[in-house]
Amino acid sequence: MIVVVGSIALDSIETPTDKAEEVLGGSATFICASASRLAPTAVIGIVGDDFPNPYRELFQKWCFDVSGLAVSPGRTFRWGCRYHPDMIHRDTLFTELGVFETFSPLVPAHLRGCPYVGLGNIHPLQQMQVLDQMDHPEWVVADTMKLWIDIAREDLDRLIGRVNALVINDEEARQLTGCISLAAAAEHLLAMGPAAIIIKRGEHGASLHTRDGQFYSPAFPLASVKDTTGAGDTFLGGLVGWIAHQKNCDVETIKQGISIGSCLASFTVESSGVTRLDSISRQEIQARLDGLENLVRVQPFVID
Amino acid sequence: MIVVVGSIALDSIETPTDKAEEVLGGSATFICASASRLAPTAVIGIVGDDFPNPYRELFQKWCFDVSGLAVSPGRTFRWGCRYHPDMIHRDTLFTELGVFETFSPLVPAHLRGCPYVGLGNIHPLQQMQVLDQMDHPEWVVADTMKLWIDIAREDLDRLIGRVNALVINDEEARQLTGCISLAAAAEHLLAMGPAAIIIKRGEHGASLHTRDGQFYSPAFPLASVKDTTGAGDTFLGGLVGWIAHQKNCDVETIKQGISIGSCLASFTVESSGVTRLDSISRQEIQARLDGLENLVRVQPFVID
Repeated sequence: MIVVVGSIALDSIETPTDKAEEVLGGSATFICASASRLAPTAVIGIVGDDFPNPYRELFQKWCFDVSGLAVSPGRTFRWGCRYHPDMIHRDTLFTELGVFETFSPLVPAHLRGCPYVGLGNIHPLQQMQVLDQMDHPEWVVADTMKLWIDIAREDLDRLIGRVNALVINDEEARQLTGCISLAAAAEHLLAMGPAAIIIKRGEHGASLHTRDGQFYSPAFPLASVKDTTGAGDTFLGGLVGWIAHQKNCDVETIKQGISIGSCLASFTVESSGVTRLDSISRQEIQARLDGLENLVRVQPFVID
Repeated sequence: MIVVVGSIALDSIETPTDKAEEVLGGSATFICASASRLAPTAVIGIVGDDFPNPYRELFQKWCFDVSGLAVSPGRTFRWGCRYHPDMIHRDTLFTELGVFETFSPLVPAHLRGCPYVGLGNIHPLQQMQVLDQMDHPEWVVADTMKLWIDIAREDLDRLIGRVNALVINDEEARQLTGCISLAAAAEHLLAMGPAAIIIKRGEHGASLHTRDGQFYSPAFPLASVKDTTGAGDTFLGGLVGWIAHQKNCDVETIKQGISIGSCLASFTVESSGVTRLDSISRQEIQARLDGLENLVRVQPFVID
């Protein structure tokens, strides 16, 4: 069982080819849509009383428990962005926090014993508030973003010291550590506390760094990408989902979790919001997982 | 047996931590230093009468044949650059072509039947001049750079149509094709003629794209990098060297060639010039090759 905390938002996304208005978004959304494929997932979040019913029903479908999803008088968090042609960099057009402004995550008592925790990308103080309420979880993974490195650095450092695994992208890893080489950045981050650092590298895949070594997974190659929003959150959901599914957080299981996280993220980017991620079958997931494994296979050889 | 053509230069490199003056550089240099580890290599290039003897002796050590290395009255090609902190992007400080300005590659008659050809990064017209003199080679691989995309696009397009494999980096692949996704860029490049497109992704590794599928190799993770000059050329040398060693250019051998190219390039970046690349033992290469294979290994699994 997994407890997930994060943002739930209505996203308005502009890409070079498309425009989506108030689709369901937010870190908790993508993590839940993803993790719930693999293990029972409970959500901790907040929405306004304008939260559309179809979106509420999605959470009820994904999550075995939505008692931690607070509904507050006011407006749901809304966010708008425009992607650059590279579909990686984006400009925020507006951020209307609404009820999210006063979000103080409350974990219902019956969920505090959940062994696995996914701390989606929100303020590190809010992430730690959840940790404070959990009762000795087995494994905690957290995501973060540039904003918190810029404005909440000390809180972020404390959060990093309290988790088993940190998921971060390559630019953030460099910014956080001042290191140029990602291998060096990972060493620096390991020294801050987590046993596992997972660096997301966009279309170049993801890497795992522990004190015992590294692992690299490619990203599933796609000819075109519709909307990359939520890809990183989906990745985290696949990772924590697999850990919870296996009831095991050893390195081999984390590697598998990275593979399945990469696989699920490759579906997320094929639509705006959760449309594609929510509609795929197990067979489609397994086929792409097998494809991912095949991408790196080469016959070993010896140079003589 | 491999025929290699490219530039031979005296490089002056500034990095955030170091400064190297007139070290041996140029695409042909790194390709020969690399390929000659694996298969007999002949060089086609030009230097001035100021070319230092120790550098000439390096070519005599690496290459079974240096009759194609012309010495012309005048100055050897000199190039200077300063790297940005990311050790990827660099500013050219000066380019003094010297005798390279009038380089018209001449392949000695006894080398024209060589089955394998490595066209290092020089003007596509010069690359095609070499091709025009070769007698039905088995496999030809070419590298290029942004400069030729900018100023010699039509010549480059013709060159690409004449090679079996193109090695290019991710930014160049996007610039050449106008595609955002590298998978789409590779499709576009395959349609131009080559059966294999190899995209270099810096510290994110390299990928192979053919009509039958893709392959991804990570880069060997290094905590620090001294000087990335020549890494791409070294990579190409490892690739064509392995093809020639195996006398086989099928997809599996190309995959192995990419692995060994990545491996050799990881040594090049640990020093300025060819110092490190030239000094490593077979055991060191094999150890790193085995490490590279281990980086992507994960137990296959099924989601139920």
